[in-house]
Amino acid sequence: MNIALIGLGKMGYNLALNMLNKGYKINAFDLSHENVKKAKIAGANGVKSIKELIDMTPKKRIVFLLLPAGKAVDDTIEELLKYLEKGDIIIDSGNSHYKDSIRRYEYLKQKGISFLDCGISGGPEGALKGACLMVGGEEEVFKDCEKIFRDISVEEGVLYTGKSGSGHFVKMVHNGIEYGMMQSIAEGFEVMYKSDFDIDYEKVAHVFNHGSVVRSWLMELVESAFSKDKELDSIKGVMHSSGEGKWTVETALDLGVPAPVIALSVFMRYRSLEDDTFSGKIVAALRNEFGGHDVELK
Amino acid sequence: MNIALIGLGKMGYNLALNMLNKGYKINAFDLSHENVKKAKIAGANGVKSIKELIDMTPKKRIVFLLLPAGKAVDDTIEELLKYLEKGDIIIDSGNSHYKDSIRRYEYLKQKGISFLDCGISGGPEGALKGACLMVGGEEEVFKDCEKIFRDISVEEGVLYTGKSGSGHFVKMVHNGIEYGMMQSIAEGFEVMYKSDFDIDYEKVAHVFNHGSVVRSWLMELVESAFSKDKELDSIKGVMHSSGEGKWTVETALDLGVPAPVIALSVFMRYRSLEDDTFSGKIVAALRNEFGGHDVELK
Repeated sequence: MNIALIGLGKMGYNLALNMLNKGYKINAFDLSHENVKKAKIAGANGVKSIKELIDMTPKKRIVFLLLPAGKAVDDTIEELLKYLEKGDIIIDSGNSHYKDSIRRYEYLKQKGISFLDCGISGGPEGALKGACLMVGGEEEVFKDCEKIFRDISVEEGVLYTGKSGSGHFVKMVHNGIEYGMMQSIAEGFEVMYKSDFDIDYEKVAHVFNHGSVVRSWLMELVESAFSKDKELDSIKGVMHSSGEGKWTVETALDLGVPAPVIALSVFMRYRSLEDDTFSGKIVAALRNEFGGHDVELK
Repeated sequence: MNIALIGLGKMGYNLALNMLNKGYKINAFDLSHENVKKAKIAGANGVKSIKELIDMTPKKRIVFLLLPAGKAVDDTIEELLKYLEKGDIIIDSGNSHYKDSIRRYEYLKQKGISFLDCGISGGPEGALKGACLMVGGEEEVFKDCEKIFRDISVEEGVLYTGKSGSGHFVKMVHNGIEYGMMQSIAEGFEVMYKSDFDIDYEKVAHVFNHGSVVRSWLMELVESAFSKDKELDSIKGVMHSSGEGKWTVETALDLGVPAPVIALSVFMRYRSLEDDTFSGKIVAALRNEFGGHDVELK
């Protein structure tokens, strides 16, 4: 089977390798020539344009998108629409907002192009060796592509989640949960770090992963991180994010769901991006105003 | 080897079975005759008093306590002190506060009795089939008991955490992390529950457990719970707690660790215990005072 793949970043490149390992022929495109070259070396048919990509891919075409959420996806869909034919399928496997996916599904439906929203979990390693997929869209279209999904996933790692948008919705919630789990693990280890006890964090994570209630893949990754850097001295506690945690909180607000833990996890990430805060200055100034408490001057 | 065990609740009884399965002879006591009878049926030597328990256990005695945290542990230690002899070892395997464990260690040391604080994770199932143990105290005393610890644990499931108190400290933090992970998972599923999508929670938990970043034992338990009750219609969302989450937050406060996620997880548990809240009344009253917004009357 002949698959077109657009976007050869960490996830897209590894997914391409995964598909190649499973015997698929991959036509691959990326705006970066460097990325296309890497994919060629790995065995994909690297092309120079979306036109060429679609020309080389026989009908009924299956086009995987692995692009940053937002404009890149819309722009790519517009470009694809010039060349795709009725019955072709676009699978957005990036981390798009589920509302965008519903909009794109409706839009493409009018043009006779099928659309699936496919959330991928497991990180680049999962993309390479076997991912976890949550797929929304029309069930018949899902079934047309199911074999590919099963081939690139771990066993039992594919779920048809229902109507359009549900794949990216469930993936968004997955990431929201992930934010809270990560922050909770992090707070626990900071309590240990600041305590009086002389604790070996790697060993603690290791024992937590053997029979405890908190055993988890994230705890295994914590163990791995501490095995490389005993107290994480080499890195800064700056926590970037890519949007799904924020979207989960926005969705919780829209739906009236109290989700304080996921919300605080997002806010703690934002806090970590700043060396100092304006709100901190305000509280310091107020303590000075009413209580004469010292403020720290710049 | 001859072990004395006090406290035959869910954890103690299962730990006794676990030890019996590994070939240990168990002398067991509990204030409840019913519990002693059950332990007898399982093959333990059930006794009627702590005096009898110690009389029947040859030196150097190893006495496991599996009691509710607090007074029960202190009272039992006082009773034990009447009969124990120098060199005997008490292992507190309950969920005691680590500061109590340090105090008991110091107290018992003066009397020539050794003391280990041993946090157990894995729930009753782990206690039965293989637990995760975090043990604090003097290293030589730990080594004296290490074979027993290894025998009742999963492979790699034992950690000597260091000086007295550290076992219960690490276990406390483990439970704090558990609170945050649970609350985060719960919030995520509530976002799905209140959404427009028709989501099968069991299937979502199942796919999350296959290759996703949030795969974990807790997610497996979520899957199991949904498999028994599709939308958990049969139970109420009342979340009790047994203290370790609260202690983790108190410790975070003492150490100056920002731990909002674990703290909110504890507060959400408290919120769940009340049908209505006094703080809710205050906010409703204030909205009425300044904005004329309706309040709901009793």
